[in-house]
Amino acid sequence: MTNTTVAQRVSVIGLGAMGTALAKALLAGGHEVTVWNRTPARAEALAADGAQVAASSAEAMAAADLVILCVLDDAAVREHLEPAAAQVRGKVVVNLTTTSPEQARALGRWAAAQQVELIDGGIMAVPEMIGGPAAFVLYSGASAGFERFRAVLELFGRAEFVGADLGAAAMYDVSILGGMYAMFAAFRQGGAMVRSTGGSAARLAALMGPFLQAMASLLEGYAPGIDNPADYVQQQSDEFTAAAIDLIDKSAAESGNPTQLYTVLRDGLTGL
Amino acid sequence: MTNTTVAQRVSVIGLGAMGTALAKALLAGGHEVTVWNRTPARAEALAADGAQVAASSAEAMAAADLVILCVLDDAAVREHLEPAAAQVRGKVVVNLTTTSPEQARALGRWAAAQQVELIDGGIMAVPEMIGGPAAFVLYSGASAGFERFRAVLELFGRAEFVGADLGAAAMYDVSILGGMYAMFAAFRQGGAMVRSTGGSAARLAALMGPFLQAMASLLEGYAPGIDNPADYVQQQSDEFTAAAIDLIDKSAAESGNPTQLYTVLRDGLTGL
Repeated sequence: MTNTTVAQRVSVIGLGAMGTALAKALLAGGHEVTVWNRTPARAEALAADGAQVAASSAEAMAAADLVILCVLDDAAVREHLEPAAAQVRGKVVVNLTTTSPEQARALGRWAAAQQVELIDGGIMAVPEMIGGPAAFVLYSGASAGFERFRAVLELFGRAEFVGADLGAAAMYDVSILGGMYAMFAAFRQGGAMVRSTGGSAARLAALMGPFLQAMASLLEGYAPGIDNPADYVQQQSDEFTAAAIDLIDKSAAESGNPTQLYTVLRDGLTGL
Repeated sequence: MTNTTVAQRVSVIGLGAMGTALAKALLAGGHEVTVWNRTPARAEALAADGAQVAASSAEAMAAADLVILCVLDDAAVREHLEPAAAQVRGKVVVNLTTTSPEQARALGRWAAAQQVELIDGGIMAVPEMIGGPAAFVLYSGASAGFERFRAVLELFGRAEFVGADLGAAAMYDVSILGGMYAMFAAFRQGGAMVRSTGGSAARLAALMGPFLQAMASLLEGYAPGIDNPADYVQQQSDEFTAAAIDLIDKSAAESGNPTQLYTVLRDGLTGL
């Protein structure tokens, strides 16, 4: 059962920029929202939009059927949840705090013992994107709880359930971010390199951006090389890739730039 | 003066998959094309499309005003050009062979002594893309020669002149390819990581592809951080980035995957 029109009781614990954006999306969706934040000023700002402000995180959890946490880290999550086991028993808890897959699984063991339906989530958006067309959020863990509140969670952005393993959402999250940081690092390095030949990072961005957009669209075609390597024919030989990366490495070295990134790429090759 | 309607005499030396695609684009554009390849079969196939087949690379160069080389490497380029100095004197030579910036500059010193207008090029496309809307080719070096034959070169794909420094095209080329290989390496690594939590590279690609396309569109906004760092306000603190990369690294390690890529990213940070 989804709840596109039923107002749900939802709590948001933690009102940083992201938690605030989540609470606003819930209020805009017509839900009964209770908020709590360590420093109350941010909660009071949301009261004007219709949020109830709780005096403690446990009180906020008691007031809701769906509890959303968006705090600093795994330690902060436990600091709020563990003393409030009675307030969350039998409820669905969605942890949108950034944690590692193992931390998500460990929290899952606590949740199972407390009869809490735990969902771990990874937000693939900056706060300004919440509720917009480009935002998506990865979820894993309690699938029944996810389906029950899917319509609520869709208010944040496209809701992508990636598996029952509580570590799955975090693993997809970090894998995707790894791609982003790798791309940014290569851009920063490339910018320094083209500047050594009288170029500019601005020109590089204008050329590299559209090229990488086209290359990103090829990833789906390369996926069978990872999922079914035995049946996969590589689209580029490792020898060709190694020679290409050697040339990049050599160009970096010639221009006095670091080569570690390219050395790692060559050592790993892509096998794609 | 551009030559959109004037048939030019153009030679293509080297008919691998890329050289063949270049020759076909020139023939389709109505130019007088002379080709040469070490093994003649590929040249003969082009004769049916109207190409003249030369008996030697020097003979092919003698027959043209614009000479295009697309051979194995810098050594092969010199093997063809150096004995044919008389055949290319006063002409425009475009080297589309993949070489390093320093190799391009060294060839430029030879060309200057021989009164050859040398242009170095980097093709940002696979052979099947030549002449299509997504292909572009980077050029640097002799700008007058580039302008003279710009209309011919546009037949391969969008022609982007990136500077008088002969090393510039190669430096943009390797910088862009570095971004591509970094993205592919992160995808391959991420695919292994999500598989350890019951996921698949196919699902990762479907999520990561569009996300990285969106992130690639941000590069232009980050360029001032490289071109004018003194005036630039970082959009994400180094501390935040380091913490995020630590989490990726930890997730890779927990799932038994290599961490070298992420270690390099953290050591370099992005500063964006």
